Amino acid sequence: MNNSFGEIYRLTSFGESHGPAIGGVIDGVPAGIKIDVDEIQAQLCRRRPGQSAITTQRNEADQVELLSGVMEGTTTGCPIGFIVRNADHHSSDYDEMKRAFRPSHADYTYTEKYGLRDHRGGGRSSARETIARVVGGAVAMQALKQMGIQIFAYTSTVGNLNLAIPYDKIDPALIDTNPVRCPSARVAEAMERLITQVKNDGDTIGGIVTCVIKDCPAGLGQPAFDKLQARLASAMMGINAAKAFEYGMGFDGCSRRGSDMIDPFYVDESGKVITSTNHSGGIQGGISNGADIYFRVGFKPVATLLQEVKTIDSDHNEITLKARGRHDPCVVPRAVPVVEAMAAMTILDMILLNRASKI
Amino acid sequence: MNNSFGEIYRLTSFGESHGPAIGGVIDGVPAGIKIDVDEIQAQLCRRRPGQSAITTQRNEADQVELLSGVMEGTTTGCPIGFIVRNADHHSSDYDEMKRAFRPSHADYTYTEKYGLRDHRGGGRSSARETIARVVGGAVAMQALKQMGIQIFAYTSTVGNLNLAIPYDKIDPALIDTNPVRCPSARVAEAMERLITQVKNDGDTIGGIVTCVIKDCPAGLGQPAFDKLQARLASAMMGINAAKAFEYGMGFDGCSRRGSDMIDPFYVDESGKVITSTNHSGGIQGGISNGADIYFRVGFKPVATLLQEVKTIDSDHNEITLKARGRHDPCVVPRAVPVVEAMAAMTILDMILLNRASKI
Amino acid sequence: MNNSFGEIYRLTSFGESHGPAIGGVIDGVPAGIKIDVDEIQAQLCRRRPGQSAITTQRNEADQVELLSGVMEGTTTGCPIGFIVRNADHHSSDYDEMKRAFRPSHADYTYTEKYGLRDHRGGGRSSARETIARVVGGAVAMQALKQMGIQIFAYTSTVGNLNLAIPYDKIDPALIDTNPVRCPSARVAEAMERLITQVKNDGDTIGGIVTCVIKDCPAGLGQPAFDKLQARLASAMMGINAAKAFEYGMGFDGCSRRGSDMIDPFYVDESGKVITSTNHSGGIQGGISNGADIYFRVGFKPVATLLQEVKTIDSDHNEITLKARGRHDPCVVPRAVPVVEAMAAMTILDMILLNRASKI
Amino acid sequence: MNNSFGEIYRLTSFGESHGPAIGGVIDGVPAGIKIDVDEIQAQLCRRRPGQSAITTQRNEADQVELLSGVMEGTTTGCPIGFIVRNADHHSSDYDEMKRAFRPSHADYTYTEKYGLRDHRGGGRSSARETIARVVGGAVAMQALKQMGIQIFAYTSTVGNLNLAIPYDKIDPALIDTNPVRCPSARVAEAMERLITQVKNDGDTIGGIVTCVIKDCPAGLGQPAFDKLQARLASAMMGINAAKAFEYGMGFDGCSRRGSDMIDPFYVDESGKVITSTNHSGGIQGGISNGADIYFRVGFKPVATLLQEVKTIDSDHNEITLKARGRHDPCVVPRAVPVVEAMAAMTILDMILLNRASKI
Repeated sequence: MNNSFGEIYRLTSFGESHGPAIGGVIDGVPAGIKIDVDEIQAQLCRRRPGQSAITTQRNEADQVELLSGVMEGTTTGCPIGFIVRNADHHSSDYDEMKRAFRPSHADYTYTEKYGLRDHRGGGRSSARETIARVVGGAVAMQALKQMGIQIFAYTSTVGNLNLAIPYDKIDPALIDTNPVRCPSARVAEAMERLITQVKNDGDTIGGIVTCVIKDCPAGLGQPAFDKLQARLASAMMGINAAKAFEYGMGFDGCSRRGSDMIDPFYVDESGKVITSTNHSGGIQGGISNGADIYFRVGFKPVATLLQEVKTIDSDHNEITLKARGRHDPCVVPRAVPVVEAMAAMTILDMILLNRASKI
Repeated sequence: MNNSFGEIYRLTSFGESHGPAIGGVIDGVPAGIKIDVDEIQAQLCRRRPGQSAITTQRNEADQVELLSGVMEGTTTGCPIGFIVRNADHHSSDYDEMKRAFRPSHADYTYTEKYGLRDHRGGGRSSARETIARVVGGAVAMQALKQMGIQIFAYTSTVGNLNLAIPYDKIDPALIDTNPVRCPSARVAEAMERLITQVKNDGDTIGGIVTCVIKDCPAGLGQPAFDKLQARLASAMMGINAAKAFEYGMGFDGCSRRGSDMIDPFYVDESGKVITSTNHSGGIQGGISNGADIYFRVGFKPVATLLQEVKTIDSDHNEITLKARGRHDPCVVPRAVPVVEAMAAMTILDMILLNRASKI
Repeated sequence: MNNSFGEIYRLTSFGESHGPAIGGVIDGVPAGIKIDVDEIQAQLCRRRPGQSAITTQRNEADQVELLSGVMEGTTTGCPIGFIVRNADHHSSDYDEMKRAFRPSHADYTYTEKYGLRDHRGGGRSSARETIARVVGGAVAMQALKQMGIQIFAYTSTVGNLNLAIPYDKIDPALIDTNPVRCPSARVAEAMERLITQVKNDGDTIGGIVTCVIKDCPAGLGQPAFDKLQARLASAMMGINAAKAFEYGMGFDGCSRRGSDMIDPFYVDESGKVITSTNHSGGIQGGISNGADIYFRVGFKPVATLLQEVKTIDSDHNEITLKARGRHDPCVVPRAVPVVEAMAAMTILDMILLNRASKI
Repeated sequence: MNNSFGEIYRLTSFGESHGPAIGGVIDGVPAGIKIDVDEIQAQLCRRRPGQSAITTQRNEADQVELLSGVMEGTTTGCPIGFIVRNADHHSSDYDEMKRAFRPSHADYTYTEKYGLRDHRGGGRSSARETIARVVGGAVAMQALKQMGIQIFAYTSTVGNLNLAIPYDKIDPALIDTNPVRCPSARVAEAMERLITQVKNDGDTIGGIVTCVIKDCPAGLGQPAFDKLQARLASAMMGINAAKAFEYGMGFDGCSRRGSDMIDPFYVDESGKVITSTNHSGGIQGGISNGADIYFRVGFKPVATLLQEVKTIDSDHNEITLKARGRHDPCVVPRAVPVVEAMAAMTILDMILLNRASKI
């Protein structure tokens, strides 16, 4: 589906790093959702560059303008068009890269696919494209909140530094108390030091984002190809720089025995069916079971190094590049709101689809 | 898309474990592919239960019948309908499970989603559903072979036993020389011993399948949401029992620095642009770059234990179950052809979609 | 979407005239619909050739076999796979047509599109493909009946013979009392005489089917591109031999003034909002308003004449053909159940989609 | 697909009559199309209100801004986002209609579907929504021109005034020489007089647009549900006020005999297979045959009368309305560029889809 995401609740995005604007259309928005534009803007500010010393210094207001689909603060059922103007172009930063194939970037592959490419700031392959996702996710999140569903994500690993707290012991209120978005002041501080050091080395570093979905209704997911985990994996692996996805017991559980990994059912005092453990990650047979959904997304160390790298250009000449744009030494903190946004759109879409499950 | 997979080359599958048949429709098959039905059958036999002492003893011929779309051994461009009759029902094995919610199975979630469920042999949630995938993949594979593209998968981990050979040193001819489908006789033997032991314990064990796609053209993948890795992740995470997906450097690379992980470009003697390393896993910016694509899929230890387990039934009574059906102690060997099939369908679909990239 | 129809409730069909079977998969069937297989079979028998002296004498039982998705007479929410075996092949009837391009048939266009074609009995372009539609429609119809919605179609024109009774004065019980499916014994008799005469001339004749949907809920239809009338038009124009579609006032109303054509609203005794006239055909702004939906579909005189026709073959030689297969002199009577089936699938799909309109 | 149109080349539109902007995203645009923005603007000006005495006097510049997907005058393969600001609101014209259900408008049906509606200027149901279609069509048209395909439409009927010239004798250069867009000065003058008279009566009138596609390649169309005529019918019936669609011989041919209606094949001097007549309208078996495609779309007399009409409001009170907004007495002249736009998008989409027909 190219630049669209979702089946009923569907975001279609557009925009390049150095074009006039990033934007999109959110289609399939149910009528009757109360929309707080400030809350959408707040999510964009969480994604925005220039938030702290450890993120890129590109400084953009990233102000969203809603163009349709909302009347007097309520969705009308009509598509929501929106744009965010690009303001802070430093296109000259990229001039020497017009013909360069930067290693581990999209320069070569876009050229192969399309026969040409927009080299300015990475064009469409820039992470600025995630602006549209954050807007789409923020609208979905407001619908989900009205349904009592909570979604949060946080930085759980940077380099070799891991947060040891299990997902169900996290206090989400702590996530945004530090620039790393790790809900432990102590670990966050160590992560921040590591990122600063890497940055000073002109290098970059990868990490992992964990995401938790609480109070999700049972029954979400199409049980064959579009299992809920398949939808979530697709959503996450479509984010720039994502390399890996696991949910529930993940890779680690794949080395284990079934007798260690099954989740016994029981009935709680309120008469609700629940499981005493949650290795299944809230999904069984591709369908949510009502328990917490949790998953982890690995992000690579981005390829834009602030040091000289050797590569070739489109004429196959060997060249030496040194990035001069403003780049993140670690994308993980800014990926947190994008992971949340993609999760929110996925869950809302599955909720709407699920309404057709029974006569 | 519920029970359909793919955008142009699209498999729609149907069938329950104990219904009359499993089958499907492959739509969007380009005209002019030479079809060898024996080769499709051979892939089904690789997926088939009862192949060896370490797989389930359910014994089905799993004979495929093509019903349309092929004339005189060549595809006509019309959809290929096919069925595989279910033969070896032991429905009475499942009678006591009619009302049971087996732990970590789909019993509870199907009931929540649909208000009722087909309890016989797991119904639609049975892994017999993957028969349709194998047929769809076998047809795609024959198209890909005509294009010079090779896809193979193998068991790389069972429990704590890992195959140490890197993906690009594998001899695919060895994969099917042992029942584990691990391309090292020595490691395969250890894995087989482990599976046998687990089976004797009435337990199950998980593992990992690695898949490699060679000679894939550059340019495949839609760069925003439908990045090639997102499509592959969705394809793989839609397979029963899959819990985790990573490609290229994967989770491991996410703890590393960018300077270790970039893949320098160079021009080889034939004038082709290639990279000297392949941490990118053959995909950059969501689009294939012509290098080997490789990824790993983690499969959980299946939940059907041949030992007593406590659970509840749909009336919320506590019950004790002991599975009596015939089940795999480790699904990984039989998942190998399913992984290949899903990869083949994904790649062919992306090739067909990519034809629309340029005017 | 190639061989699929519908967004949520989606039929994917396969099969050629002289292949082993026609069949399909109905996906997105809500769980909990009571299914009467005899009723599906009855609809197939209405579509079946050989019903009377005025339809083709090809004699097929057209027995449907459901392969999945129904348990104990109730849909489970899983896809319904089905097949109808082809039995009565007279392939030799078609041998001389292997290379012929029959005028106004699909022979030439299939060859241009696919580079080859299945010439046996028209292959995929045969009207036998509508078997799958009738099955898909019969399942949808059973769901709609449970919701209190009624759909019926009838022959309103054959050649220059028109049924003068307005759509809202039709007694649906009369439709199947004659082989023409015209709900007036007198007009039906004249139509039957005309078809017989045309047949004796070795010729064919066209006509019009009118379809009525009663007690359809208000709110169906996506108001931009997928207006309810656009969905219905697509459904009908996808039927073999359909040349024209109009709803409500149709072409005739397009020569009129607005003051003659508006439908005044009023509130009836029960407090329901209704219109005193229904030139809108039950749809306003692309969305159903609760009034009767009615539309007309024009079917051409089919191109298979039982007389000598001059044409060319694939080597561009001039040839003379005389059809020897068994063909309908007028497709309209057998198109009636196909029109109903397509309408039923469209309406059910729109009902399911509409569940996502509000939060 | 709600507010999206097309499978590969896909327009997603947004915007209400009195919101900040109308806009959309064109996805699936092949890279390498030369784009002339002035030509897009010229098409918008053809659709624009206030062009002449016989169209609505709402005066909007309707200036398009492209936001992405085009670099140095060439498409990049990335989605084209665009907006057209709404400028000339007279919202107070509509205040009294806030609660009114105007007869034969979308007021009632939107309220039923969404539970609320944007009453300002018809909101999403306004014909301003077609701005997005014209932009999407103008981009497609530039691609088609590069392929040598020509599309034009014209007013062939207003009220009872019909243009007698057959479609293949039309001089497209005459279409825009008069405000009615009828390619005969004499007939256009009569039509203009009729529209003026109707307008002076405070009334409206309907009519028919004929569209012709020349030099379309053979092979376009998916032969089952998505026959080329089904796609065109869907495209046309999705336009505001469209009531009827017919192609080739249309309804008229449905009263005729097959022997009058078949199109004999022959081979012309250049060796090309063509037909000596074209009752098929350039489509056989759902697939284009290379001959001219032509079809007719009927538009109703719009329901906004400049005279008092009785109706009810959302509280079920009887009220009397008199429209004071600026409205077209006949939408047909302004529908001409919209019909062309929808045809262009449909044909380009089918061309791109058709690239996957053969291996």
